[in-house]
Amino acid sequence: MKLLEEKIINEGKVYPGDILKIDSFLNHQIDTILMDEIGKEFKRLFSECKPDKILTIEASGIAIALATAKYFDNCPILFAKKTLAANSSDAYTAKEKSYTRGNEYTVRVAKEYLKENDNILIVDDFLANGEALNSLIEICKQAKVNILGAGIVVCKTYQPGLERIKKLGIKVECLAKIKSLDNNTISFD
Amino acid sequence: MKLLEEKIINEGKVYPGDILKIDSFLNHQIDTILMDEIGKEFKRLFSECKPDKILTIEASGIAIALATAKYFDNCPILFAKKTLAANSSDAYTAKEKSYTRGNEYTVRVAKEYLKENDNILIVDDFLANGEALNSLIEICKQAKVNILGAGIVVCKTYQPGLERIKKLGIKVECLAKIKSLDNNTISFD
Repeated sequence: MKLLEEKIINEGKVYPGDILKIDSFLNHQIDTILMDEIGKEFKRLFSECKPDKILTIEASGIAIALATAKYFDNCPILFAKKTLAANSSDAYTAKEKSYTRGNEYTVRVAKEYLKENDNILIVDDFLANGEALNSLIEICKQAKVNILGAGIVVCKTYQPGLERIKKLGIKVECLAKIKSLDNNTISFD
Repeated sequence: MKLLEEKIINEGKVYPGDILKIDSFLNHQIDTILMDEIGKEFKRLFSECKPDKILTIEASGIAIALATAKYFDNCPILFAKKTLAANSSDAYTAKEKSYTRGNEYTVRVAKEYLKENDNILIVDDFLANGEALNSLIEICKQAKVNILGAGIVVCKTYQPGLERIKKLGIKVECLAKIKSLDNNTISFD
């Protein structure tokens, strides 16, 4: 997605530890025009899908899910919560280790909002090692819903997440594929 | 806002400790059609405002801000982060004590996204004691921006937050005003 790649080149900041920050338009401040284009692009890429719900994870995923839902008949969105709380019987939970922060969360979705055989489209901001996406997939499996696919805004293709998810037989579409952040230079696939 | 009050009556759950949960359409699952109506209603209530940015706080505020920005010329949105991290020189920070969870956060906005004299409209999901909104106002003051007003989806009018914020001279608009949750019954002002 050309517009997104240009934004990443112009405004993305590379930090030690292979970290890309795009806080000026995605993860802190949000460019709402770009966000609408992201939703439109996911609709184009998943045009055959008729999701009952769009699933994501707080916090940055929420805007992406809302922008995408607009193009899928205004279906409901559902955001998994990251919590330190223990498991409970009324929620599906999975563990997620954060790549950027190094700590571990419990990811949690209330059971009542995922019904067996629901058609679910997953969206999220980043895919690197795939921890966040894995936790959402794990929750979907527990809930026995149908995963229609996963739409990712920014993917680091040189890390194992993308291939791992594809091996599960899940269709993954990434709007910007980062090949390398070496020497503080952002290059795309 | 009639549609919102009906949803709260039909789907809201009252828990001990004076807690109202509206996880089925606002704080976990999101009704995207209702969310669009919320944005439209804030535009009506703040029609005289021309915000440079809409400021909110993660996580539930993000969808509200995005839905509202659509009706304010697709201005950027900015979500404050709740973090356990220490203060840093490149961020405005304020303390927030969570009413529902009992713990204390540092609320944080990177300085580069709030410029002196920016016109800021604040939106958030709940106003009870006003802790979250207070922290956003405190950050706005540090940044010397103009607060155009605060749009709140659900307000408990019997708790002190609303009056406290109004006394600061800030225009506050609440879409659903809850008068009481006594005896597990939700009643509106």
